[in-house]
Amino acid sequence: MNPSEICHLSASQLSGLVRQREVSPVEIVKAHLTRIDSLEPGLNSFITLLPEQALAQAQASEREIGAGRIRGPLHGIPFGLKDLFYVNGVRSTGGTRIFENFVPATDSAVASRLRNGGAILLGMLNLHPLAYGPTGENRDYGDMHNPWDPRRITGGSSGGSGSAVASGECTFALGTDTGGSVRIPGAMCGVVGFKPTYGRVSRYGIVPLAWSLDHVGPLCRTVEDCALVMNVIAGPDPKDPTTARLPVSDYRETLNRGLRNLRVGVPKEYFEAPVDPAVKGAVERAIGKLGELGAAVSEVSWPLLRYGQAIASTLQMAEATTFYKKLIQTQGNRLDPVVRVRLEAGLFISATDYIQAQRARALFYHQGLGLLGEVDLLAGPTVPVTAFEPGQSEIEVEQGRMKVIPWLMQYTRPFNLTGFPAITVPCGFSREGLPVGLQLAGRPFEEATVLLAAHAYEQSTEWHQKRPPV
Amino acid sequence: MNPSEICHLSASQLSGLVRQREVSPVEIVKAHLTRIDSLEPGLNSFITLLPEQALAQAQASEREIGAGRIRGPLHGIPFGLKDLFYVNGVRSTGGTRIFENFVPATDSAVASRLRNGGAILLGMLNLHPLAYGPTGENRDYGDMHNPWDPRRITGGSSGGSGSAVASGECTFALGTDTGGSVRIPGAMCGVVGFKPTYGRVSRYGIVPLAWSLDHVGPLCRTVEDCALVMNVIAGPDPKDPTTARLPVSDYRETLNRGLRNLRVGVPKEYFEAPVDPAVKGAVERAIGKLGELGAAVSEVSWPLLRYGQAIASTLQMAEATTFYKKLIQTQGNRLDPVVRVRLEAGLFISATDYIQAQRARALFYHQGLGLLGEVDLLAGPTVPVTAFEPGQSEIEVEQGRMKVIPWLMQYTRPFNLTGFPAITVPCGFSREGLPVGLQLAGRPFEEATVLLAAHAYEQSTEWHQKRPPV
Repeated sequence: MNPSEICHLSASQLSGLVRQREVSPVEIVKAHLTRIDSLEPGLNSFITLLPEQALAQAQASEREIGAGRIRGPLHGIPFGLKDLFYVNGVRSTGGTRIFENFVPATDSAVASRLRNGGAILLGMLNLHPLAYGPTGENRDYGDMHNPWDPRRITGGSSGGSGSAVASGECTFALGTDTGGSVRIPGAMCGVVGFKPTYGRVSRYGIVPLAWSLDHVGPLCRTVEDCALVMNVIAGPDPKDPTTARLPVSDYRETLNRGLRNLRVGVPKEYFEAPVDPAVKGAVERAIGKLGELGAAVSEVSWPLLRYGQAIASTLQMAEATTFYKKLIQTQGNRLDPVVRVRLEAGLFISATDYIQAQRARALFYHQGLGLLGEVDLLAGPTVPVTAFEPGQSEIEVEQGRMKVIPWLMQYTRPFNLTGFPAITVPCGFSREGLPVGLQLAGRPFEEATVLLAAHAYEQSTEWHQKRPPV
Repeated sequence: MNPSEICHLSASQLSGLVRQREVSPVEIVKAHLTRIDSLEPGLNSFITLLPEQALAQAQASEREIGAGRIRGPLHGIPFGLKDLFYVNGVRSTGGTRIFENFVPATDSAVASRLRNGGAILLGMLNLHPLAYGPTGENRDYGDMHNPWDPRRITGGSSGGSGSAVASGECTFALGTDTGGSVRIPGAMCGVVGFKPTYGRVSRYGIVPLAWSLDHVGPLCRTVEDCALVMNVIAGPDPKDPTTARLPVSDYRETLNRGLRNLRVGVPKEYFEAPVDPAVKGAVERAIGKLGELGAAVSEVSWPLLRYGQAIASTLQMAEATTFYKKLIQTQGNRLDPVVRVRLEAGLFISATDYIQAQRARALFYHQGLGLLGEVDLLAGPTVPVTAFEPGQSEIEVEQGRMKVIPWLMQYTRPFNLTGFPAITVPCGFSREGLPVGLQLAGRPFEEATVLLAAHAYEQSTEWHQKRPPV
């Protein structure tokens, strides 16, 4: 099989070929390493590459197959981790030079579950420094570049994860999502990005940003691949006391149940907020498609939605600054200046403001949960704009000049605040050929519903089959 | 029966007499109202008395008995509520003139469960203003006076609850406990005070002080009475989302199981802290008694214990100030000056300090829970000193001059921080005839163990039978 072709298959497709011995883990890994070599100068998705380790694992993986052992659908499938997951013996920079020599001596729960599932780690992926920004710009390790137009941003903070999956450097990647950091690059790079329910996936061994908002999630080429990865990483972990002790269903098994009888609500507040007309158009067509597929689509209202940014921002700044307090005091001058200012600003949030924000969050959560009593899913845009050029702190739209922070997070943050599962799935392109994402969100711990709806939509469209020009 | 005798019986004893029709609810209520009339000038336990309402309820109660209906062991038993529980149509001052005309239009969950259980509310009990202080001093409604020596404090904040139960003004009372506010007046007034597990009793309709530390609990003349009251008030409440959805056992049923085979640990840090020798002596003898009764007593260590005050104080100040922020800004000058300063100080706690305190709390909790893996109960003093005269912010002891705040809370606060159930039971008297309390604490939601141990101790001693000189 043509090596470049290997790099564009989904995990599910690759897995079938591995099982049928039509392609071997070593071939797969070599094809990806070659592609990485040729694309990295332009994309800069990786901070650390692990070619020897990956090849050695591929050989071991191949021997296992020879001995008749296949660990599961991720056996021999290459992936990348955002460079804030701990992998024993592999440096973890968090996207800043401050930690360029930090090598953890433990595995994150996700890394160890994926290794046990047979997946092969190719390297550590670039990110917005400390995961604290939505664009994928990084002064220390270089900006991430969008495979659809390398002059543009990937979105962030898991920008390297988005570009690596979109460009064929990895079959899938893991990111973290505190305000949209999986879904924003997912949408802007034209891949599927999934943020499970708060408490569904262990965060053990992952550098936190803001505990009460942080989530882990996969970026994949298809919804089915997200289901495969979730099947491996989801479930309780004694090392992360915030994980829920709830059973996890087989997410792939329910994937083909279809949208019929599902009620999909579109919060009217979504389109009252400033949004790029190209995004609005593509998402409205996608929502129309959900209706054609059998969903009962209706308008709903989430009046508190517009307070989501203020609430989440207060919590995030206070929590992130608590975690990085010593760092700001001792090495603030080595931080990205925008990240530094955001961290320092957190010092001036009072405890009473933080507690008020937690109280407001409870109201926000209950209003959202109430909505999800009326409908099964909420649908709308993932990001209000398509990828733009780096170095901009404001973007001009019809409604005025929007501050990139927090505008990019306008649709994603509500689901960090509530912890509800939410996915972005490709739903079209702007006139410039830049991808647009449709976001679907569901009830807590009902990941299966979110995934099956996204799958039904994806399988009825061809957006996910289009490849970036790199 | 002699009316004064009626006022010194336990709920359990009174209930037996009611059932046998040897005494009627009207007789009981009248006896208490008479006693209140004669004692109040000296004790000042009540802020609001409800004689007409109580008599009317007693008559209704009597008619029910006539019709063969007895609601349960609290049928016809008179009680008082700390004046921050809402009772529909009854003013609730929170212990400050600022709210002297506030009349809630809803019942607290506890008030409504007790009414449904047949208990008769005599009135609203005095407290430290806003429940924010451990002494029971109140400039607006007058200080509370200790029945064992009216020149001395009752302890607080539920001081009126302590003095009313100790003096025979009420058979039992309900208080709230954020840093010891049930257990401190319980110990200082020589009654039983019980703080159940966080989440065990609904706080709906109770003015909060600090959400994450606030508990509701009974003050009674015997441990058995605490079990009876708990049987009525414990259990989940949809109106209070912090209540645990856990089944509640019959606390009276297990009361006589005895101490044999129970492991009782005494944290060595308890007696390394400054404590009055009279308290130390009485508590050491009480712990010896637990051993004689069959418990396996051992020394344990809770190294983080000494940080409990700092952690709890940070959380309490931040949460209380959040709740009263508007009040401080608009009517701060009408507040008790010490309470005002404590509330204003909360404005200067940063979000990062609050979050750090929450993180420290998690460590503190897990260390405590670990201890309760080694032993079933922790035993020690409730309050480090016996009742003293009001107006003192410092008390001289061997180890130096102790600040009353936070010293009085040294032993109680750890169980607000962890939420573990804890009880104070009378265990002796100082040379001046002032009561000393033994505190027993257990595992979360294992109230039954705490109660049965306290009951076994109480029934083997005569401390609870001694009456104050009033």
